[in-house]
Amino acid sequence: MMEFSAGQIAAVLGGKLMGDANVMVRDVAPIESAQSHHLSFITDEKYLPMLETTHAGVVLVTQSLLDSHQSPETKLIAPLRQRITNHQSTVILVENARGAMGQLLQMVSKTMFPAKKGIEQPSFITEGVAIPDGAYVGAFAYIGRNVRLGAGVQIYPNVYIGDNVTIGEGTILYAGVKVYANCQIGKQCILHAGVVVGSDGFGFEPDAQGVNQKIPQIGNVITEDDVEIGANTTIDRAMMGSTVVHKNIKIDNLVQIAHNVEVGESTFLCAQVGIAGSTKVGKHCILTGQVGAAGHIEIADNCIFGAQSGIAGSIRKPGMYMGSPAIDAGIWRRATVRFKQSGQRNN
Amino acid sequence: MMEFSAGQIAAVLGGKLMGDANVMVRDVAPIESAQSHHLSFITDEKYLPMLETTHAGVVLVTQSLLDSHQSPETKLIAPLRQRITNHQSTVILVENARGAMGQLLQMVSKTMFPAKKGIEQPSFITEGVAIPDGAYVGAFAYIGRNVRLGAGVQIYPNVYIGDNVTIGEGTILYAGVKVYANCQIGKQCILHAGVVVGSDGFGFEPDAQGVNQKIPQIGNVITEDDVEIGANTTIDRAMMGSTVVHKNIKIDNLVQIAHNVEVGESTFLCAQVGIAGSTKVGKHCILTGQVGAAGHIEIADNCIFGAQSGIAGSIRKPGMYMGSPAIDAGIWRRATVRFKQSGQRNN
Amino acid sequence: MMEFSAGQIAAVLGGKLMGDANVMVRDVAPIESAQSHHLSFITDEKYLPMLETTHAGVVLVTQSLLDSHQSPETKLIAPLRQRITNHQSTVILVENARGAMGQLLQMVSKTMFPAKKGIEQPSFITEGVAIPDGAYVGAFAYIGRNVRLGAGVQIYPNVYIGDNVTIGEGTILYAGVKVYANCQIGKQCILHAGVVVGSDGFGFEPDAQGVNQKIPQIGNVITEDDVEIGANTTIDRAMMGSTVVHKNIKIDNLVQIAHNVEVGESTFLCAQVGIAGSTKVGKHCILTGQVGAAGHIEIADNCIFGAQSGIAGSIRKPGMYMGSPAIDAGIWRRATVRFKQSGQRNN
Repeated sequence: MMEFSAGQIAAVLGGKLMGDANVMVRDVAPIESAQSHHLSFITDEKYLPMLETTHAGVVLVTQSLLDSHQSPETKLIAPLRQRITNHQSTVILVENARGAMGQLLQMVSKTMFPAKKGIEQPSFITEGVAIPDGAYVGAFAYIGRNVRLGAGVQIYPNVYIGDNVTIGEGTILYAGVKVYANCQIGKQCILHAGVVVGSDGFGFEPDAQGVNQKIPQIGNVITEDDVEIGANTTIDRAMMGSTVVHKNIKIDNLVQIAHNVEVGESTFLCAQVGIAGSTKVGKHCILTGQVGAAGHIEIADNCIFGAQSGIAGSIRKPGMYMGSPAIDAGIWRRATVRFKQSGQRNN
Repeated sequence: MMEFSAGQIAAVLGGKLMGDANVMVRDVAPIESAQSHHLSFITDEKYLPMLETTHAGVVLVTQSLLDSHQSPETKLIAPLRQRITNHQSTVILVENARGAMGQLLQMVSKTMFPAKKGIEQPSFITEGVAIPDGAYVGAFAYIGRNVRLGAGVQIYPNVYIGDNVTIGEGTILYAGVKVYANCQIGKQCILHAGVVVGSDGFGFEPDAQGVNQKIPQIGNVITEDDVEIGANTTIDRAMMGSTVVHKNIKIDNLVQIAHNVEVGESTFLCAQVGIAGSTKVGKHCILTGQVGAAGHIEIADNCIFGAQSGIAGSIRKPGMYMGSPAIDAGIWRRATVRFKQSGQRNN
Repeated sequence: MMEFSAGQIAAVLGGKLMGDANVMVRDVAPIESAQSHHLSFITDEKYLPMLETTHAGVVLVTQSLLDSHQSPETKLIAPLRQRITNHQSTVILVENARGAMGQLLQMVSKTMFPAKKGIEQPSFITEGVAIPDGAYVGAFAYIGRNVRLGAGVQIYPNVYIGDNVTIGEGTILYAGVKVYANCQIGKQCILHAGVVVGSDGFGFEPDAQGVNQKIPQIGNVITEDDVEIGANTTIDRAMMGSTVVHKNIKIDNLVQIAHNVEVGESTFLCAQVGIAGSTKVGKHCILTGQVGAAGHIEIADNCIFGAQSGIAGSIRKPGMYMGSPAIDAGIWRRATVRFKQSGQRNN
């Protein structure tokens, strides 16, 4: 991270500076552990008292939090002003410290991790594949036949891209991503290290002798635009047709998406979630950590599932669900209280 | 996929053609989304009405399904004949549409994904290792000392094969598979992208100072023939002896098999299953998604475990089990009803 | 494994030899499956009867086990002496057979898997990065800018190391490990194949239009010394600051550690455990298989969590916990008995 002065930051954010405009920060840190070279932020009332104790060089604070403490009853604002007068921390008041922090993080991130460009050697690019200007192909990356790459794609080292794959513009494939043949990845997607897209769906059929025979999986995977996929997550190709991940879906690490699944736009799949074959997940859902969904079911839009819940059948109504099998969250919470009570009784 | 006429397909399958033998299809799709260039199939009575509405060019139908609808009460068969007369879809009646579809999928699959052959550069093949005729070694693949490869093995790019490993004939290692030293992979196996075979088992022993010391893991992993292993699945080497995956076992994505486990033939391990150390799983079992099994237990042949169940102790009898800890499925289902009811009461 | 005589082993271990000092062994195996060329061990009384039936060439036995069987009531010791007289097995009595076995396994392991050295070609080492004497850089390994490597590091093929990463001395990165930019790995660590360290934390914030915007993750991951990380495990970088894995922590396969998590020293995370963002796990804890921990909670030192348990809130007291949500293990066990009983009743 480069070094910025409090004055520069206030100017960029259009914030109101209290304290020394010349204080320099070169990193960001949470308010509780920040040192004098750190920028930090307070967006929640309960952290306001930390303004008295933090060692952060510069702190972004949501203006309205301070406003609500201007009354004579409040003891906070006086020490804060004292602190600023003592040049212990410089405070920048902004409309929304979280949003302002996000804006700064974007700037910092672009400085820390500028887009990579160019082709490193040795890499394996099948003849006839066009590498767009401004793209990055890392060493030991493998690009198969008829692959189409959008402008500005970043293909890190040790990535494997099978035949006929399409990668949309601006998409990043981190180290060791593998995309099997015929899959389509949208624009502005991020696939983290070790992601596998397009492995065979899990389909077998016993033959007359009872031996499991593989059902060939000849479909593919389509991810639309603005999809992020966490490290070592796996998405299987469809038996026929496509496994579909719609736009703006965010998938965490070690998630499993089986063949012919369809996930609706803007849904979150947290770490270690598993979705079995042919299931259709709605839009704007949140499946929290380690949730499992059975195969061949449908999940309505706007559903939230508590951690480790098991979605055993179709869910028709938006709502909050918990437990395995997953039921209404309120009912589940009361039932777990009874469950615990039953273990506390000795009779 | 190449283009086939309805007449060619009927001839290959020995089916009875109803409609236009010249209709061409070049892809397969589920009956509900099929278009005029698609081949589809109906193997379940409930999808028969879709014969009236599907846009599929050619539909395979199990003969017996139609037979049961020939009675005067049935309104289905007449529109079907009408439809065929109108040349909307061509129907091919076969003894078993699913089996026929499997047969066709095999043909299509071989056309779409012909076996890869040859040695791409740069790859790393230790001196003295023989690459059989007809084998494939992709770019950036690494083959250690004394590795023995069977005829027709396919080693995709970025695969790592440690010293003294044996890979049986016809086996496919997709991109980024890693096999540690001394492991043995059988014939006709498929290891999907990112699979790790032979990593150290998880064994530690605190020393006199209470510091965890590693117990060296000097065994290996043996997978017999016709084993399929899903993407990013991990199988640890034995402390001593072997972790054994018997023949015809099918393992889905992100499964964990710990050291010294033995899995019996023809068993299914679905996605995200975890089996702890030294446990012995029987033959013809099904462990569905996210099931966990404790260490040092035995599981009888022919057991089925519901999703997310936790196998806490040895299971002596074939049957269906659910819950964590896993119990008889019928008892578990009734207990979960009571559990839910207990949360619905307000007293 | 090289060949050793019973006499050599007894000398190395300072044990008391009973039987033929010239018997040669060249491998180790569990007592029940050992053959005449195997070394085995008995550390538990219940395996003592196997001394009569084992085919092991040499067996290490904890001295005190035999002592407790010297009484006239015990029929064991006589056949053992008979057996040794018959030269069926040679027994070496040691103070602690498990410890002695560990000592031997260490020796064997060093013989079987000597430290790799040298730089294989092609590899990608950014100009200016110093490769210490005695280090190993495998083919197709990628080493970014300003990477600092300690003495004796072993970097296997297809490893990716991003810019500014530090790897401590003696650390092993097995095939296909990926370490993102700016992360720090301690000394004497082992990262198994497919591990991902430093992928982005899972952080998003909806914008004014309800579209999920990525919160840049500009922190890093720090693992201290003597940490082992299992195959395909993922550890996300912090949003700000560091995700921290303290010294002597042992992590199994397919574990997920989210951004800004801190795990205390000497804790075990078994396979498929998931820890959500900003959670602080204490020292000397054991999270067994498939355990999940919610985000933003604290877990006290010396806690044990049963398999598949779900840690929904902070845990303040050392102890054993089970269930989802995780509660006191004793209460949980009784409650599960009641749960099962409720499913057995027909009323």
